[in-house]
Amino acid sequence: MHSTPTEITAVIFPGFELLDLYGPLELLGLLGDRVKISVAAEQPGIVESSLKVRSVADIAISEVARTDILLVPGGRGTRTEISNPSLLSQLQRLSQSAKYTASVCTGSVLLAKAGLLDGVKATSNKRAFDWVVSQGPKVHWIRTARWVEDGKFFTASGISAGIDMALALIGRLFSPEIRDEAATRAEYIWNRESTNDPFAVV
Amino acid sequence: MHSTPTEITAVIFPGFELLDLYGPLELLGLLGDRVKISVAAEQPGIVESSLKVRSVADIAISEVARTDILLVPGGRGTRTEISNPSLLSQLQRLSQSAKYTASVCTGSVLLAKAGLLDGVKATSNKRAFDWVVSQGPKVHWIRTARWVEDGKFFTASGISAGIDMALALIGRLFSPEIRDEAATRAEYIWNRESTNDPFAVV
Repeated sequence: MHSTPTEITAVIFPGFELLDLYGPLELLGLLGDRVKISVAAEQPGIVESSLKVRSVADIAISEVARTDILLVPGGRGTRTEISNPSLLSQLQRLSQSAKYTASVCTGSVLLAKAGLLDGVKATSNKRAFDWVVSQGPKVHWIRTARWVEDGKFFTASGISAGIDMALALIGRLFSPEIRDEAATRAEYIWNRESTNDPFAVV
Repeated sequence: MHSTPTEITAVIFPGFELLDLYGPLELLGLLGDRVKISVAAEQPGIVESSLKVRSVADIAISEVARTDILLVPGGRGTRTEISNPSLLSQLQRLSQSAKYTASVCTGSVLLAKAGLLDGVKATSNKRAFDWVVSQGPKVHWIRTARWVEDGKFFTASGISAGIDMALALIGRLFSPEIRDEAATRAEYIWNRESTNDPFAVV
């Protein structure tokens, strides 16, 4: 007998970064019946990533009543979406319903602009860091971090760091054993120290 | 002035593994104008991955005249596709046109069934290894490897190993500097030793 699966809602937008999304979704997806993954966007249908390769949103974000986990990738599309109050208000609403809200790379700028990270410790992509900071002046930005956990918020550094953060989130949601099993199934060598950040610009 | 971009064709099918595809595509995509990425399938349109999340094929594989790099992900869909002579013959045709053919995870079983790996050193996913071997009796399968390079063939172990293989391929195609720049942009800690395989089952 299974308990209710953990609902994961990933929100995509034009110009999202592929691995920001699919790294965490792969690791979470390997949990099988423990999770139920939906990909949401402002409109359901085809969404073009920052690398042109296209993905499919299953549902309009406005149609998602609530979620357990909200996952927000980054990518160059965030430069546009920071000025999209409709998307930002949907992120704010869904995050309030969620047990955990996670972002990868510049996904954290959208959480910041949605007002979700005020007073919260968070991180972001290294190459866009100063821009991200300028968009979220009330956030406690951490420059040297593979990922940052603060209460219900998990924010990862650039692109591949999302995989490491996803594993930390799986450990918190389920157990260290289930986390390690997912990493092994993905044959992924987990960078387990959230503060070990070889890409920090100091 | 740019030289002609390197054409990369990724072939997907129902039940392909997300990170097998998007890990390598992210790193290759970060090369910008140096590459041109197409996602192909038997029919263009929406293709469901092994984790249900859906992607879009830009073009029918039969419409791809040639490619520089052929990339084949694995996933549970390979269990069906090994019995799909139409797909296998297209992989054979495209691989013959390609400078390099790369697979991730059980993607190598499709290359093996297409007759491309006879006498070639190759590897695959650890959890499916014995099944893969049974499908490619003339392949020189390597059980302990993060990835294997043999002539024009690059084959990676399970799921995340495709990222490490993609970086090795970028180093071969362009230069170590361009490879390291792509890894840094993805904030990815490259597992640079192809023979260092903590997931080998011995």
